Amino acid sequence: MAVSGTSDDELAAIEATAISYLTAFNRADAAAVVANYADDGVLMAPARPAVVGKDMLAMVYPKVFEAVGFEMTYDIKEVVRMSAEWAFVRSATEGTETIKATGEVQPAQYQELFVLRRSTIGAWQIARYCTCKIVPMS
Amino acid sequence: MAVSGTSDDELAAIEATAISYLTAFNRADAAAVVANYADDGVLMAPARPAVVGKDMLAMVYPKVFEAVGFEMTYDIKEVVRMSAEWAFVRSATEGTETIKATGEVQPAQYQELFVLRRSTIGAWQIARYCTCKIVPMS
Repeated sequence: MAVSGTSDDELAAIEATAISYLTAFNRADAAAVVANYADDGVLMAPARPAVVGKDMLAMVYPKVFEAVGFEMTYDIKEVVRMSAEWAFVRSATEGTETIKATGEVQPAQYQELFVLRRSTIGAWQIARYCTCKIVPMS
Repeated sequence: MAVSGTSDDELAAIEATAISYLTAFNRADAAAVVANYADDGVLMAPARPAVVGKDMLAMVYPKVFEAVGFEMTYDIKEVVRMSAEWAFVRSATEGTETIKATGEVQPAQYQELFVLRRSTIGAWQIARYCTCKIVPMS
């Protein structure tokens, strides 16, 4: 049972940022994706070394969406508030990727770990984000 | 400049857990790898969906090392203490993987995000860990 309604509201706000990210990603909306990050946010994803800071993120996400189309569903596994200012969300996504250069459609499965920070105006923003593509060992 | 020696010591202890993990991983020492996790620790890695809890982790890591030999160097990118109990470490690793079934050696590059929690006896343990294999988009 939750200690207070405020606490529930904050957990919902934390989860909402992760969902906002995942749904914006799925519709290839780079501006909306990047809007979920803190200014010093970091992306750790399969295609390249870490992308550090909102300016770099704004350059990279459009390239991702030019190369690949995603049709994914998400499953939020847990939402944990670590302190007044910090939280994490763990999720899994599953669906298909379309390689735009060839039109090839592949099944795809990822898992995600978001570390979020509460901004001075109370918005939960992605501070660090690592997404791991699941490729079963043969 | 650090506020206190204690704070520096704690950052060093946080980083030491990540390094302990990465070096145990590199020498394929499953018991030492798993010893760095909290009881409810979660691994998010490329070969399978999330591995939840120390019992499952103790089953999975030996399979990883049976299948692949790793020869990696690590680079700790940042160590951030989020609260009295929580911290994260971001790192990158680079080297080679040997597929044991075939003997094939491949270059490999990963990036890692550790979320660590301080135990009741003051040990920093891996609570959640996501590692992402870098495979450049063609």
